[in-house]
Amino acid sequence: MNKTEIIEKIEQGKIKMYEIENYFDKTESVEIRRIYIERQTGKKFDSIGSFTFDPNNVYGKNCENVIGGATLPIGIAGPLKVISDNANGEYYVPIATTEGALVASINRGAKTVSLSGGVNVISEYVGITRAPVFQVANIKEAKKFKIWFAKNYDLVKKIGEATDQYLDVIGYKIYTFGKNVWIRFNFDTKDAMGMNMAVVATQQMCDYIESKYKNIRTIAVSGNMCTDKKPALINSIEGRGRIIEAEAIIPNQILKKYLKTTADAIAEVNHIKTWMGSALAGSIGFNAHSANMVAGIFIATGQDPAHIVSTSMSYTNIESINNDLHINVKIPSLNVATVGGGTKLATQMECCDLMLTNTSSTLKEKRNINKTDKLAEITGACVLAGELSLHAAFASKNFVQAHQKYGRSTP
Amino acid sequence: MNKTEIIEKIEQGKIKMYEIENYFDKTESVEIRRIYIERQTGKKFDSIGSFTFDPNNVYGKNCENVIGGATLPIGIAGPLKVISDNANGEYYVPIATTEGALVASINRGAKTVSLSGGVNVISEYVGITRAPVFQVANIKEAKKFKIWFAKNYDLVKKIGEATDQYLDVIGYKIYTFGKNVWIRFNFDTKDAMGMNMAVVATQQMCDYIESKYKNIRTIAVSGNMCTDKKPALINSIEGRGRIIEAEAIIPNQILKKYLKTTADAIAEVNHIKTWMGSALAGSIGFNAHSANMVAGIFIATGQDPAHIVSTSMSYTNIESINNDLHINVKIPSLNVATVGGGTKLATQMECCDLMLTNTSSTLKEKRNINKTDKLAEITGACVLAGELSLHAAFASKNFVQAHQKYGRSTP
Amino acid sequence: MNKTEIIEKIEQGKIKMYEIENYFDKTESVEIRRIYIERQTGKKFDSIGSFTFDPNNVYGKNCENVIGGATLPIGIAGPLKVISDNANGEYYVPIATTEGALVASINRGAKTVSLSGGVNVISEYVGITRAPVFQVANIKEAKKFKIWFAKNYDLVKKIGEATDQYLDVIGYKIYTFGKNVWIRFNFDTKDAMGMNMAVVATQQMCDYIESKYKNIRTIAVSGNMCTDKKPALINSIEGRGRIIEAEAIIPNQILKKYLKTTADAIAEVNHIKTWMGSALAGSIGFNAHSANMVAGIFIATGQDPAHIVSTSMSYTNIESINNDLHINVKIPSLNVATVGGGTKLATQMECCDLMLTNTSSTLKEKRNINKTDKLAEITGACVLAGELSLHAAFASKNFVQAHQKYGRSTP
Amino acid sequence: MNKTEIIEKIEQGKIKMYEIENYFDKTESVEIRRIYIERQTGKKFDSIGSFTFDPNNVYGKNCENVIGGATLPIGIAGPLKVISDNANGEYYVPIATTEGALVASINRGAKTVSLSGGVNVISEYVGITRAPVFQVANIKEAKKFKIWFAKNYDLVKKIGEATDQYLDVIGYKIYTFGKNVWIRFNFDTKDAMGMNMAVVATQQMCDYIESKYKNIRTIAVSGNMCTDKKPALINSIEGRGRIIEAEAIIPNQILKKYLKTTADAIAEVNHIKTWMGSALAGSIGFNAHSANMVAGIFIATGQDPAHIVSTSMSYTNIESINNDLHINVKIPSLNVATVGGGTKLATQMECCDLMLTNTSSTLKEKRNINKTDKLAEITGACVLAGELSLHAAFASKNFVQAHQKYGRSTP
Repeated sequence: MNKTEIIEKIEQGKIKMYEIENYFDKTESVEIRRIYIERQTGKKFDSIGSFTFDPNNVYGKNCENVIGGATLPIGIAGPLKVISDNANGEYYVPIATTEGALVASINRGAKTVSLSGGVNVISEYVGITRAPVFQVANIKEAKKFKIWFAKNYDLVKKIGEATDQYLDVIGYKIYTFGKNVWIRFNFDTKDAMGMNMAVVATQQMCDYIESKYKNIRTIAVSGNMCTDKKPALINSIEGRGRIIEAEAIIPNQILKKYLKTTADAIAEVNHIKTWMGSALAGSIGFNAHSANMVAGIFIATGQDPAHIVSTSMSYTNIESINNDLHINVKIPSLNVATVGGGTKLATQMECCDLMLTNTSSTLKEKRNINKTDKLAEITGACVLAGELSLHAAFASKNFVQAHQKYGRSTP
Repeated sequence: MNKTEIIEKIEQGKIKMYEIENYFDKTESVEIRRIYIERQTGKKFDSIGSFTFDPNNVYGKNCENVIGGATLPIGIAGPLKVISDNANGEYYVPIATTEGALVASINRGAKTVSLSGGVNVISEYVGITRAPVFQVANIKEAKKFKIWFAKNYDLVKKIGEATDQYLDVIGYKIYTFGKNVWIRFNFDTKDAMGMNMAVVATQQMCDYIESKYKNIRTIAVSGNMCTDKKPALINSIEGRGRIIEAEAIIPNQILKKYLKTTADAIAEVNHIKTWMGSALAGSIGFNAHSANMVAGIFIATGQDPAHIVSTSMSYTNIESINNDLHINVKIPSLNVATVGGGTKLATQMECCDLMLTNTSSTLKEKRNINKTDKLAEITGACVLAGELSLHAAFASKNFVQAHQKYGRSTP
Repeated sequence: MNKTEIIEKIEQGKIKMYEIENYFDKTESVEIRRIYIERQTGKKFDSIGSFTFDPNNVYGKNCENVIGGATLPIGIAGPLKVISDNANGEYYVPIATTEGALVASINRGAKTVSLSGGVNVISEYVGITRAPVFQVANIKEAKKFKIWFAKNYDLVKKIGEATDQYLDVIGYKIYTFGKNVWIRFNFDTKDAMGMNMAVVATQQMCDYIESKYKNIRTIAVSGNMCTDKKPALINSIEGRGRIIEAEAIIPNQILKKYLKTTADAIAEVNHIKTWMGSALAGSIGFNAHSANMVAGIFIATGQDPAHIVSTSMSYTNIESINNDLHINVKIPSLNVATVGGGTKLATQMECCDLMLTNTSSTLKEKRNINKTDKLAEITGACVLAGELSLHAAFASKNFVQAHQKYGRSTP
Repeated sequence: MNKTEIIEKIEQGKIKMYEIENYFDKTESVEIRRIYIERQTGKKFDSIGSFTFDPNNVYGKNCENVIGGATLPIGIAGPLKVISDNANGEYYVPIATTEGALVASINRGAKTVSLSGGVNVISEYVGITRAPVFQVANIKEAKKFKIWFAKNYDLVKKIGEATDQYLDVIGYKIYTFGKNVWIRFNFDTKDAMGMNMAVVATQQMCDYIESKYKNIRTIAVSGNMCTDKKPALINSIEGRGRIIEAEAIIPNQILKKYLKTTADAIAEVNHIKTWMGSALAGSIGFNAHSANMVAGIFIATGQDPAHIVSTSMSYTNIESINNDLHINVKIPSLNVATVGGGTKLATQMECCDLMLTNTSSTLKEKRNINKTDKLAEITGACVLAGELSLHAAFASKNFVQAHQKYGRSTP
């Protein structure tokens, strides 16, 4: 069968789009599928057809029914000075974005914090979570099951861990309502984001529990107390993935020179806008635009962009102390990886590489660092830089001018 | 000055990275900047250097300090049958993603709903919002200002509208706390997402207010009651951008054949996982994974990915009525565009084009449709397809198998 | 039948407890029922038997199956200086409480603010709300119904208003999800809290809608978007009952003398505890203990104590400006009455009377004041006094000492 | 000094209201203070002057500046059949309320569930919490302090426990943001609600920490992550006080006979109103009116009424299984006591006694029960009865009629 033939067969409904891989290799399949879609729509998709990843790596791992690639511009912010357990140097941060002024704004923040001694960051790994929900007969049985589970946790854990050499079950917490029982498992999935591993391990554990405990059934391998890709306070309170704390102090003089405003003015914006305004709006994120920095880095480095959601539940606090500015950012749920998922695609791998490289001529990193922690820490520092810059822009009223200069395109 | 010379000057700190555009054209600037970063990091970024957009369109509009492009695979889900005011046909949905199994899952949902008569969608445009925060002397003055503002709204509105021919100020709501006053403006920004226009108009209105009303000052042109890119209930309750309602009915037989489960089983998962589980987790999104579909479409079609945050606050309800499945999705805050922002970049424009093309041989669209409404409506339908598929996967327990087959890559 | 006979008949299951009123007058019924319960439990309830209200007023209005009264101590805080549209003077606030130190603490706050010029208060009446939920066939029908309702609102309103001469329907807002439609009605119920009237009017409007609009049915006369007696952000954002703003400025010297601390110290506590701590806890109330003041006043004056819930969603902001303390309190949902409900019982009526009496020898109230607004305004001022006092106690670390002195009883 | 003289001295500002106890005994002080207030207001407060508690017990423990008592009617609901670890019998529940129809409604629910076999309840004691907030120099120091605290927890715990023989420190959880550190302590305070003890112990622990750890200071002995008397999701997720699960199954026939409706109809109301409506309203309580039952019991039995706030964050789920109704209630944060606080006042003690007495002639309680757990369990059962009744009233549309009959008083 040649390309034309298979396209005709798809059009006739004899073969399905996803079956192309049965007849052609991955690279050709992408082309054939695109041609088919071009014929269906009567349009040409030449740009989509031009991409850098290898289809052989993508199929069965990152995407199905591939027709080509989506390309976003990458802007560079930095160098950004970061001091943490795994980073110690100056880093360039790749931001994949189509929002004008964003990179310029982050860059301004990066410069300001770097000149002020850099951003101190601490990351704590609490692990990715998955919370299956089970059902037993009634509340008494739910209580009994909790006791049984506590006793049998080690066995269940072993079942979960047997599914993957890179996965450890590192804890759990049980919640009940009526006859329904949620077990929120925490997993250490090393340098992978781990949601896939976690789901496989969880299903095995669910099956095991069903086989060992009478009269229990799994309602869903995810019962939404995980909570994955929805804005949920359980993640803010318990943490999920990594908890990030980032901190910087900007001296009065640097503030004036580079951000054209004062610590008092910025702290006032932070109090009224970021704390009071967010509270009045019923927001569960108390920041200016942390989602922007996270989205830019996540798309560039191959992270799951749906995790922007939980990361947007971050907190930014700014104080003026003796006219210097003290800024803190907390991200209670940051999910990143340096292996697996999108991280191994062509541009994504290069962006990870770019971001993780210390370009300082003087600062040296420790020997045995964890590169995923490092990525998380630099991300946290970058969020802080962006938060600082936007808060300052509001305070100095040049926010609009920035948008007028960079962000505007005539519709 | 040649390329090598300018790179050296940057390395010597004599020229800044963003100043390259002063000496070279946009396309060359991207290359020079990338080479500079390669020298700084000692790495090669060939894939980043291969991209499809025209740097001349990007600089000053979508991104600064560009070094190249980030490319994600695009998978196709569909055809998806959508019936709404602006769509009436079968559409292919481009999903830019690196999460294995996602496109396959959406595709399964799309097939199921399309065979069942398609997804009915209603979109309501409430406009993008921006809420500056002002400060007056005290609560009495805040009350007075509210009265003044109501009287002068028409004048303020004119000032805002004068900033852009495509922008209308279509409403406002005032909130106060103490001496602080937030005015949440709603804007009609036509086919643009409109945040940029809105910010420019808002600043002009702020300036006008300050010039006309004694003793008021703008604290910030955005006071976080907008609420942009943070998960805030004000957007769920008041709506922001577009409010989407999507609906489908899946007959018993189709359910059994394509989703391998029953309406009762799926409805049970929906009630326990999506409503109860979300509530117990303190979630303000009651869905399974709407962020996934939205992220895939947003990145493919050039929307602002940070807006995934508010879109994730959606609701999915599933009922079993006479063994048929009734599914509803509500997205109270969907922000999309077909002009401006990332929508005019090469692959993004093609994806918009792709998604908006009716491929049905029998169904015809109306004549005068709004293509941005249409994009929003197809997005809503796609979210429903994805929600159906994942709920069904949980119910039929094949969720894990799907991940094992498609989603797995060895770290 | 004499008392003994009826008690025996109840014990034999021949007569039900609530049927006693069929044979005896209200006062005797209370006694008989108490004796019956005493026999059932083998205990004596003499204190419960001693009460001040007239059972004839209570039965069929405030309580059923009455056996007597519950008595709480009333402490007096004040005089509290309040300046508002309806209050202008010094007021004593009755606090019914069993929490030691509370009255002393409020009193301290009252003294401090009164010496500083009093509390400025503004109340805005937005009306009590009730949101029935209806169901139609699908989302299209829901949209049609919204249009129909907008056209027929005036007629529906008339139906509602016909149920009670004291009730006006003053507005509504429609929310939909799928085929379900919530209409959130706002009612002006004059000096009554109005929930009862509102429910009666709403049912009539529901019946009318069902009779006029084909294929609609009422799911529940309250669809929880009201939201009554649950902590819901819709009330914070839209307001419910009365929205209160209260404000005071405490000079440096008074602060030092009466609260033993500084404006800076209190503002720091406010920022870290009340804003940051609340946000991190996932709280939707940003205050120290507003529920305490509200509970004390509500129980004393005959308000519905379940409304403490929504009132606890209040905001307290404290700033230090030139070493003076500026404090603001916002309560977005305060539900109070001066007629109906518990307000006409003996001690409650006296407490209303007490609280509404201006005891200042110099300050004069306006002529035509609304006494329910006035009650709300004094309540708001009292919340501010209590918030100030507790924040100051934390700042000056004498919080614990206060509890040790007043709050302690040996278990 | 006689009564008239002291009143004159108060009027002259020579003696303060709270100083009356220095000259007269407690009982006389109450009278003098009331007379003083009567003279100030020109009103008579005879009903307030008639009360049942002994002023000697109140002063310095429950209330300051006492002028008398507030009396509310107590209605009886029951007998309510409760089966739990600490209850096993039929109980009458005293409801102090002024809301007509409430007791009748709860009573109807109580009858229905009791005829159906009663309410199964499980209570779990997680302890009252108090979360002081500290400040150190920066995020690094915060991390160090966490490690130090973990090592020194046993010592700190001892300091806390030394403050009261009835108090145990049973756990803690640390949260940080920037340089601020919250330690959320859990306390076992036996049969007392324990907030007072907890605050005293916490202050001692704070002082100890300050004395042992260099460069730390207490910002506030309560940092709002406790969270006390504000509606905060941390309490729903972590639990506070007691976590209650209550459950009942109502057979089809009983439902029809006593509640005039069907399981399907009630389950539909529950799904649309209680789950969907609450979610759309941004509510963090998913119930119909649990605050009503809790308020009634709390005021009657001397609990802290401000704790109604957290208790209102409860969940009610109702399903129809084979036409029988299955109802579950979860209250994640119920704070009750049987010693201390208001529980030892005259009517309150009688109400505790009343509520805790098993009136069943056949069911026997276990020997060694915990009466505070028992009170919590009966409260949980009563909430379930009230939830059932109101849900059923909506379903059967007789909600309004009930209000018209009982709840109405002419303004």
